[in-house]
Amino acid sequence: MFELDPRLTADTEDLVILGLCRVLLMRDARYPWLILVPAKPDLVEISDLAPEDRIVLMEEITVAGTALAGLYRPEKINTGALGNIVRQLHVHIVARNTGDPAWPGPVWGHSPAEPYDAATLEVRIKEIRRSLGTA
Amino acid sequence: MFELDPRLTADTEDLVILGLCRVLLMRDARYPWLILVPAKPDLVEISDLAPEDRIVLMEEITVAGTALAGLYRPEKINTGALGNIVRQLHVHIVARNTGDPAWPGPVWGHSPAEPYDAATLEVRIKEIRRSLGTA
Repeated sequence: MFELDPRLTADTEDLVILGLCRVLLMRDARYPWLILVPAKPDLVEISDLAPEDRIVLMEEITVAGTALAGLYRPEKINTGALGNIVRQLHVHIVARNTGDPAWPGPVWGHSPAEPYDAATLEVRIKEIRRSLGTA
Repeated sequence: MFELDPRLTADTEDLVILGLCRVLLMRDARYPWLILVPAKPDLVEISDLAPEDRIVLMEEITVAGTALAGLYRPEKINTGALGNIVRQLHVHIVARNTGDPAWPGPVWGHSPAEPYDAATLEVRIKEIRRSLGTA
């Protein structure tokens, strides 16, 4: 049975379920930052996915990146599946801009998250859900 | 016309061409580290690829990660498409281990590459080419 890793639950807001993935919003006000988690048990590497699920994952990565690009017009979308700390397969999609705190390096491991204020978080959740066609 | 970004050329060995991607080996002896570059012009984001090319890219990401996993038995494969410095679309596939210099953080931006000695580089190129079914 699929269960979200509790460290992902702790750091994120649950936005929506797409065909394959749970879509989470990282609680870090500095970056529009989504995490896609294929909702199947026992996945660590991309190669653990069935071939047909890999195709869906690629499409959902594209949908998520396109949503962030359309909403926030970032300089670059960063996509990464690391899993060195949380092994459950998950894919980060992060909107990046020149001058953001970690630019041009990666966001992962850079510095502690900065919390959203409640109103901004609510707006962000709504606009991303709407852009993903799920609200 | 597709041309490899000169910064990628400068840092890598050219290993092989798969169906879509040029496969490069990063010249950093600390990590088995491949870079896949879809050999089509004017690509920056994954969403710039045609849908059918995205499917091929996902399969080649899987093939490359599986090759590194089979050869080097790493703790984790890290996969990332950042492009904050080199904008030409490219996907890193890196074999990671507890205790490697950047562990558990990302390799990108961590520290300068360490060169291979010539004999080790030659072996690595041969074994990866063989594992990718191209030598």
